[in-house]
Amino acid sequence: MSVVTQTLKKFVNAPEDVVKESLAGLAAAHPDLLRVDFTNQVVLRKDAPVAGKVGLVSGGGSGHEPLHGGFVGRGMLDAACPGEIFTSPVPDQMLAATKAVDGGAGVLHIVKNYTGDVMNFKLAAELADDDGIKVESVLTNDDVAVEDSLWTAGRRGVGVTVILEKVAGAKAEAGGTLAEVAAVATRVNDRGRSFGVALTSCVTPSAGSPTFDIGPDEMEFGVGIHGEPGRRREKIRSAAEIVEERADAILGDLKPAKGAKVLAFVNGLGGTPAIELYVAYAELTKQLERYGVTAARSLVGNYITSLEMAGISITLLELDDELPALWDAPVHTPALRWGT
Amino acid sequence: MSVVTQTLKKFVNAPEDVVKESLAGLAAAHPDLLRVDFTNQVVLRKDAPVAGKVGLVSGGGSGHEPLHGGFVGRGMLDAACPGEIFTSPVPDQMLAATKAVDGGAGVLHIVKNYTGDVMNFKLAAELADDDGIKVESVLTNDDVAVEDSLWTAGRRGVGVTVILEKVAGAKAEAGGTLAEVAAVATRVNDRGRSFGVALTSCVTPSAGSPTFDIGPDEMEFGVGIHGEPGRRREKIRSAAEIVEERADAILGDLKPAKGAKVLAFVNGLGGTPAIELYVAYAELTKQLERYGVTAARSLVGNYITSLEMAGISITLLELDDELPALWDAPVHTPALRWGT
Repeated sequence: MSVVTQTLKKFVNAPEDVVKESLAGLAAAHPDLLRVDFTNQVVLRKDAPVAGKVGLVSGGGSGHEPLHGGFVGRGMLDAACPGEIFTSPVPDQMLAATKAVDGGAGVLHIVKNYTGDVMNFKLAAELADDDGIKVESVLTNDDVAVEDSLWTAGRRGVGVTVILEKVAGAKAEAGGTLAEVAAVATRVNDRGRSFGVALTSCVTPSAGSPTFDIGPDEMEFGVGIHGEPGRRREKIRSAAEIVEERADAILGDLKPAKGAKVLAFVNGLGGTPAIELYVAYAELTKQLERYGVTAARSLVGNYITSLEMAGISITLLELDDELPALWDAPVHTPALRWGT
Repeated sequence: MSVVTQTLKKFVNAPEDVVKESLAGLAAAHPDLLRVDFTNQVVLRKDAPVAGKVGLVSGGGSGHEPLHGGFVGRGMLDAACPGEIFTSPVPDQMLAATKAVDGGAGVLHIVKNYTGDVMNFKLAAELADDDGIKVESVLTNDDVAVEDSLWTAGRRGVGVTVILEKVAGAKAEAGGTLAEVAAVATRVNDRGRSFGVALTSCVTPSAGSPTFDIGPDEMEFGVGIHGEPGRRREKIRSAAEIVEERADAILGDLKPAKGAKVLAFVNGLGGTPAIELYVAYAELTKQLERYGVTAARSLVGNYITSLEMAGISITLLELDDELPALWDAPVHTPALRWGT
């Protein structure tokens, strides 16, 4: 047992126990929704496997809560595999999760585009296939800030992952086949784009010091969810200016149809107060008007975070005829919950 | 127009516009749930007034979001009156809200125990009475950390306010009379106790510097939601030790019946990551076991905050036969939403 660093400004015991202690809290707080397999470190929907339903498995490094464990439950994920903080889970976790949620209709792996996650989910899918479980994978890569990055070849997977897990979960709940669930998931990623800005770094419990240095008047424009560098480091500007440039980056890449309807998602990275998230949402509304785009659905809050980083990411999903109903469908998870 | 301070580490435009710009974002994001009367600075349930239903009005300084504006909607508040940051709203706001939600069955004012809020809500109730609207008031004063405080005579009103607004909202939705809604609200306050701990200060946009100074290895044990001093300043300890002492303070004061069931609420003050909130919940579960108390319901997240303060408050509500069903009843607000 290590001794807790007394100057770590966190509600933790031993830093190396944070993930499993937090999972114990998640299981204790939500026994009506989920259970935790502590041997394999997997969060499971309470009644998994659901016979005849496509199983949804996601996972990745911890520190982004509620993603993914907070999205386990009816209408969303069947399982989440949390790695250590900012560290990919291992293939054995993913294989255990895949087996645990297979109800005979196959399993969809939802993978954010980070090298470790991609490699390990690929291996787990091959192992599951050896066991006779049909697995499809969908990769999220919605971050328009940078091509390639510290831990990524190609674009990073960020905010669209939250929406994708909700929408694909609804499709599976409605009896969609594995091919159909994978198709709608792919469509969500194709129609979604994101961009993040950080004002502060976060501190991982094991490091005990900021992940990156940033000046008192600076922001990281295009930051990744582990504090990876974005497009540039620059002086802080007003919310209006920051949101305008981000909207241009997202909408310039997405190129939505004139008159398009979008789901507008303003996400806090962990340390930004709600009052600022809504200031950003108000600014986003003005930018959408400028592009002739309407926000037909919204999501505002901390859903994919970087521990206590002060920052905001914006995700826009261009809706089509099917997506709104899948978004509105009932969901029962710790972090997203509505309907019966 | 003032010039935005370029070194303010916040997503804002002019600091003095934060509250109204944030309300514009709230209105834009949730048109299905609420609307904002910008003239009177009041957040209103979309379909207020509801004929024959008791109206619920709360309010207080901004900076504690989602409290209270994020709790406006069917099954919870009919109106919220946001003041400037950490500043009481004025009687005119409260009167306008009271008039707007009066459906003929009277109006309940839910008031956190801070001197300005108490005084202004009292005056608004008198003015409403002059207009022939029947008003009852309930005061929350659940914080066991300190008697009297910077802005309070007696105990401060904190976390129990969230639960009270949900429970009283359900009672009103079910057709309770003003006396019945006021009675259940009073009961929730009587059966609830809270205690908060801060690891960092917050920064208000207008001040631009920390509300209080705190050392890199210190915590404020018993902090208020505006950063008011608590019981003592001390060195940071482990999550287990912090939660144990808080549980003792709360349960020693609440003195629940042996075998009691509680609603256990672990609240983030704004800058604490979800992973730490769940570590705290796991520790709280151990403490409840020690007292022979069971958590029959839970709530974990940022619900009554102090901007981006790193800190956690714990609230325990001793349940009775009626309260669980009122808690479980449908609610449709930006921050608490379940059921149909």
